[in-house]
Amino acid sequence: MKILIVGASGTIGSEVTRLLEKDHDVIRAGRNGADVQVDLTSEESIQKMYEQIGNVDAVINASGGAHFSPVTELTPELNEIGIQSKLKGQVNLVLLGIKYLNEGGSFTLTTGIMMDDPIAYGASAAMANGGVKAFVKASAIEMPRGIRINSVSPNAVEESWERLHSLFEGFEPVPVNRVALAYKKSVCGLQTGKNYEVY
Amino acid sequence: MKILIVGASGTIGSEVTRLLEKDHDVIRAGRNGADVQVDLTSEESIQKMYEQIGNVDAVINASGGAHFSPVTELTPELNEIGIQSKLKGQVNLVLLGIKYLNEGGSFTLTTGIMMDDPIAYGASAAMANGGVKAFVKASAIEMPRGIRINSVSPNAVEESWERLHSLFEGFEPVPVNRVALAYKKSVCGLQTGKNYEVY
Repeated sequence: MKILIVGASGTIGSEVTRLLEKDHDVIRAGRNGADVQVDLTSEESIQKMYEQIGNVDAVINASGGAHFSPVTELTPELNEIGIQSKLKGQVNLVLLGIKYLNEGGSFTLTTGIMMDDPIAYGASAAMANGGVKAFVKASAIEMPRGIRINSVSPNAVEESWERLHSLFEGFEPVPVNRVALAYKKSVCGLQTGKNYEVY
Repeated sequence: MKILIVGASGTIGSEVTRLLEKDHDVIRAGRNGADVQVDLTSEESIQKMYEQIGNVDAVINASGGAHFSPVTELTPELNEIGIQSKLKGQVNLVLLGIKYLNEGGSFTLTTGIMMDDPIAYGASAAMANGGVKAFVKASAIEMPRGIRINSVSPNAVEESWERLHSLFEGFEPVPVNRVALAYKKSVCGLQTGKNYEVY
């Protein structure tokens, strides 16, 4: 399969890349230093990326940010970061990408555990995650040409634990290779409309 | 209690108003013909509304739109309608309203059944609903001064069935007074972070 991985240089994206490039033709996309450059907050940039690479069999996104702060300090402007990046960035990757997916292809987006098991400072990220999860479930029933769409909802990963443990006190981080397997299941399996929880 | 109801003239909003105004001081807000005018897609308009009415004990929103179309015809621009109205409109009503809520006050937002039981043309609305549901759950744990936040997720209501039945084939519509009771439970009860499903 020809697989586009957006956010291929991140902690999760690089593990997904490592796992899938054994058996597939992987195109790495990201803001810097990748095969193809893309900024998910820009429709034009997403469009240009698809025009550059042409048709693919699978699109994976492992990128997207949101602002972390107490909800009392979360302004509409700061909340916009998650809307533009983690929510709209991922949804637009799908809306603009459907016509570039081969028959039976798949989209795999990324949500996160904060929507199910809330943490302090996480309201904006949870909002974006919940929007993506619901979009995946609802859009799956309308995808043309056998195209599937799923999301992976990772817990905090062991490889980022030193940086993230204070936000996730009491959580049990998971090894990133377990998270990467969920993306593989989404791409290589036949399920659709699913949010794979790796908790 | 002093209760602000945004979208008070809609099918659901007017029933919520009828139910709550028996025992409470209700302020109707909406685009037209209400006690206070507000456009949820404008931060300035929300801010101005709160400045006009001052502190309240409860804020209910029963408004918010999204574009309905097949996902293959859903452009980023059309998807923006749901983001600006049903998602950001509601979230900004909370972010800008926290400081106007009295101690122990509450927010009650509106989601919808399409995020749980998807229908054709409903991907954008489902996305907005899912974002609101997750925001409610995550922000509830950080609300100051005993402020609570919930959402109500209505099925299609009998009173709109003639207009909506072709979108909701096979659904069993619920009477709008059952939906209104969920808003009352949210405002008058003590639960928080909850999405009341009226299915």
